[in-house]
Amino acid sequence: MTVGIIGLGLMGGSLGIALKSLETPYHIIGYDHNATHCREAIELDLVDRVAISMDEIIACDVIILSIPVNGIIKSLQNLTTVDSHTTIIDLGSTKEKIVESVPSEIRANFVAAHPMTGTEKFGPTAAIDQLYRDKVVVLCDMEDSGERQQRVAKSIFREIGMKLVFMGAKEHDRHAAFISHMPHALSFSLANAVMRQEDPKSITALAGGGFRDMSRIAKSSPHMWEDVFRQNRDNLLTAIAYFQDELNRCKSMVEDEEWDNLNRWMSDANRLHDIL
Amino acid sequence: MTVGIIGLGLMGGSLGIALKSLETPYHIIGYDHNATHCREAIELDLVDRVAISMDEIIACDVIILSIPVNGIIKSLQNLTTVDSHTTIIDLGSTKEKIVESVPSEIRANFVAAHPMTGTEKFGPTAAIDQLYRDKVVVLCDMEDSGERQQRVAKSIFREIGMKLVFMGAKEHDRHAAFISHMPHALSFSLANAVMRQEDPKSITALAGGGFRDMSRIAKSSPHMWEDVFRQNRDNLLTAIAYFQDELNRCKSMVEDEEWDNLNRWMSDANRLHDIL
Repeated sequence: MTVGIIGLGLMGGSLGIALKSLETPYHIIGYDHNATHCREAIELDLVDRVAISMDEIIACDVIILSIPVNGIIKSLQNLTTVDSHTTIIDLGSTKEKIVESVPSEIRANFVAAHPMTGTEKFGPTAAIDQLYRDKVVVLCDMEDSGERQQRVAKSIFREIGMKLVFMGAKEHDRHAAFISHMPHALSFSLANAVMRQEDPKSITALAGGGFRDMSRIAKSSPHMWEDVFRQNRDNLLTAIAYFQDELNRCKSMVEDEEWDNLNRWMSDANRLHDIL
Repeated sequence: MTVGIIGLGLMGGSLGIALKSLETPYHIIGYDHNATHCREAIELDLVDRVAISMDEIIACDVIILSIPVNGIIKSLQNLTTVDSHTTIIDLGSTKEKIVESVPSEIRANFVAAHPMTGTEKFGPTAAIDQLYRDKVVVLCDMEDSGERQQRVAKSIFREIGMKLVFMGAKEHDRHAAFISHMPHALSFSLANAVMRQEDPKSITALAGGGFRDMSRIAKSSPHMWEDVFRQNRDNLLTAIAYFQDELNRCKSMVEDEEWDNLNRWMSDANRLHDIL
């Protein structure tokens, strides 16, 4: 089975590694508009070979779109000539606008997936073994995908060790705003709040594990996250508003020295870890 | 040399482990008002023995205060009878109010320290080997400590593998607000924002590494953090306000669809990692 991976960064490259390590004889063909990425993908053994033209990718049994979410929407418009047996899977962090954008003639070919994994790093050199192992992948609006395509996608994600969760694209985007997109906005804001102080170096010299964890994803790709924020704008704004309510509550309790209430509010927050 | 550790939780317990593993023959005596903690400290081998009364601690060569910061201020008032050679070291997360509270007759005995390390866990069972190794300890207002006490404190922190940073208590508290206290307020707020949604479980089912990292310290002890927020109230409020400015900036750019500006703002945040 041939798998064409469009986008050879963290997600696409790590998928190449995962598929190549399986017993199933997948033949992995990479594609990236960045020539350096193509060279690195070969050097790092992320794919079996790199495609010279998109036609080679269009001819694959499975096509993976592992590029920023606006790029996914554009690419889908150029995949309308695929065979009816072809499976197209996107790995984007947003789902509603992508699902809406799929040309009707290839809707059955298409499977919308969001693997809930990643790191703050990007590009082919960021690709790592086991990125997907034991992680959740959300599969959205599966009833609109063809039977064959559902089967192929589920099989691939199971083979690389993922836990499958099924959800509507709308619900996914609301959940993803809370669990991923808004937290990225917080981490970027935290980093900038420190960077705008008089001497950020003397502050960061004191950084312990808490700050490192909170600011880690502030290292994420602006190119990728600009697109995510654009596509999930409304849910992101809602999630930020909920967060702001809580932070304002905290701030008021500190200002007004309501220590018992603050203690209870912190205890409420502790409870997250009963369900996480 | 006898070391009395008041408070046998994460910080005190881990210090016991660290000191017991050294070649220097420290004799470690623990003290905790919680009888369960005393029993656990013995079972877990965190200390050589547990003191029956505070008098045994007062007679130690070195006294460590590893309890919540309000408790540190209270305990200091009861240590005025120590020998002039005794070294008293506090490990609290705030420094200005603690330094101000030291009775003048034991000011030379006292060394204000903040080890920039920890985890979200607490109590004797949270104590771990190597908690202090290769981490920073901030030593504040050292010119007010006796020569002997400065030497003893520096030697202990160096022996357990820490990097020493010297700073005024006032500057420490401002820096700690940005690097630790405000990030805790964010993590508690994030946890509560998710917990107040309709079905937090279906949201957290999608949690990846980013959310886990951002919400980890929301599991921290309300008892400890209530005191920290109280003692560093003004700096905390300032740091929260800087953060809120950045988050509002982010929100406005998303609302107004200023994607180029948003991209630049994210790139600014990326730069934190050049200095971290």
